[in-house]
Amino acid sequence: MTDNNVEHQEQLIGRYVQMDEQDWIPFPDALCEGPITWKLLNVSPEMGAWTAIFDCPEGSSFNAHIHIGPGEYFLTKGKMTVRGGDDRGGATAVAPGYGYEPCNARHDQTYFHEDSEFYMTFLGPLAFIDADGNPIAIVSWQDVQAAWEAS
Amino acid sequence: MTDNNVEHQEQLIGRYVQMDEQDWIPFPDALCEGPITWKLLNVSPEMGAWTAIFDCPEGSSFNAHIHIGPGEYFLTKGKMTVRGGDDRGGATAVAPGYGYEPCNARHDQTYFHEDSEFYMTFLGPLAFIDADGNPIAIVSWQDVQAAWEAS
Amino acid sequence: MTDNNVEHQEQLIGRYVQMDEQDWIPFPDALCEGPITWKLLNVSPEMGAWTAIFDCPEGSSFNAHIHIGPGEYFLTKGKMTVRGGDDRGGATAVAPGYGYEPCNARHDQTYFHEDSEFYMTFLGPLAFIDADGNPIAIVSWQDVQAAWEAS
Amino acid sequence: MTDNNVEHQEQLIGRYVQMDEQDWIPFPDALCEGPITWKLLNVSPEMGAWTAIFDCPEGSSFNAHIHIGPGEYFLTKGKMTVRGGDDRGGATAVAPGYGYEPCNARHDQTYFHEDSEFYMTFLGPLAFIDADGNPIAIVSWQDVQAAWEAS
Repeated sequence: MTDNNVEHQEQLIGRYVQMDEQDWIPFPDALCEGPITWKLLNVSPEMGAWTAIFDCPEGSSFNAHIHIGPGEYFLTKGKMTVRGGDDRGGATAVAPGYGYEPCNARHDQTYFHEDSEFYMTFLGPLAFIDADGNPIAIVSWQDVQAAWEAS
Repeated sequence: MTDNNVEHQEQLIGRYVQMDEQDWIPFPDALCEGPITWKLLNVSPEMGAWTAIFDCPEGSSFNAHIHIGPGEYFLTKGKMTVRGGDDRGGATAVAPGYGYEPCNARHDQTYFHEDSEFYMTFLGPLAFIDADGNPIAIVSWQDVQAAWEAS
Repeated sequence: MTDNNVEHQEQLIGRYVQMDEQDWIPFPDALCEGPITWKLLNVSPEMGAWTAIFDCPEGSSFNAHIHIGPGEYFLTKGKMTVRGGDDRGGATAVAPGYGYEPCNARHDQTYFHEDSEFYMTFLGPLAFIDADGNPIAIVSWQDVQAAWEAS
Repeated sequence: MTDNNVEHQEQLIGRYVQMDEQDWIPFPDALCEGPITWKLLNVSPEMGAWTAIFDCPEGSSFNAHIHIGPGEYFLTKGKMTVRGGDDRGGATAVAPGYGYEPCNARHDQTYFHEDSEFYMTFLGPLAFIDADGNPIAIVSWQDVQAAWEAS
């Protein structure tokens, strides 16, 4: 018989979000240019992962950021350039397109050339950075949850 | 100065798949009922993660399996029941729907009530099981890559 | 105002185990040869990770298994061969030694040449296999927790 | 036949570090108080994970930081207080002790009351913070690798 002090853990239960029953909410304007809206779909507190879908009108963009862990996107509509686009060693995504952005990928600008929509899974936060690459804000699963719940 | 034998690692580079330039390939019929087709989008060998999109005609289903790690789906078209559906404590997903399936979720049948399509990210393999829950086959990132490349 | 059905998640809290207040418990003899004992230290249900320390007398070994995700060990005492040891393309670890075993590493035998002790973090289960590499048992975080709590 | 543009990935190979053949290197003094030394054992670029062992003399401490992902430590020698210690809702670890620090755990000070040594696995970076909790520096797997290789 052991004196067992490992905390018992339960299996997680599944979660479901009916996406069309959520409203599109303005994404914090400190983090983007133009009227980007989003729906938060999941946060995973143990790994620090989160999942969302973004609606990005033509001409909008996200401010410069670093992906602290890997992220995967499914561009369902439109056209997006990441890491400067094809012309500068990055990628130009055209729907339907899939992209894997590795841990520590730096996105100086993510720009939408047409009305676009993408679904993305993130492991870890986004670190928004200034022109020198220094962190301005770390946007973690807790921050995205707080932003979503405040709306 | 140290005698340093930690292996130097490089940052990964981004990957992009133009999804409509891939053909739909039959999913291995040992693992499903009905003519399910798929496109593999990514494998991540360090974590054992992988990402794919599946096209599932009305009446098709996946055989019984356990998600060895968490998985997240984005149902873009149709209607799917997982873990028996709403009626039996599971979920009924209707497009557009998002689901989080936790580590060790057991899916005795994943059934498509209409022509459906879903995108899914997986951490770890699927373990296909018999009626007693014993593993028949563990389908890892290497197995899905091999199946994809064989087609 | 949104009709928000994303489930709110709380930050996890820290856990601590005073290791010398735990007894060494026999490791299930279906999974090893010789009187290996262990202490479970943590299970992480979201990722399917778990952590334990093992005490392995000279001549003991673990049965053939595959690491379903990456594992990292810190050999604090003794000598261990993995993947056949140095002579057959594997590793021979001598305390103090650190090893990274990648996702899908197959360990036909892990053998202890001296009284040994090692601490290990695992992402995902171990799949114990027969001589043909077919899965006999998948030992997940839930299984190790159940084995530990039964003792 | 498909026009297959998913990049083929190879299984990773195992890594081994003979820990006593590494020298103890000073840990960057911008990040700690007192002559803490360390050995880097592994970096995992896909997940952004890393592993190290630290030697912390009595009276030393790490500067305030946030664990961007979960971390697990094995205190092999000495005594350490995290998150203020037992008296302030944190933990006091006494060797041999194991601790799980969750994603987003904030450690205003990690203090060593005796000569101590601990092994730790990290998922994601450490964000060192100022008194207001704002990020000063994000120390990722690439940064720890660069610091190690510079020494």
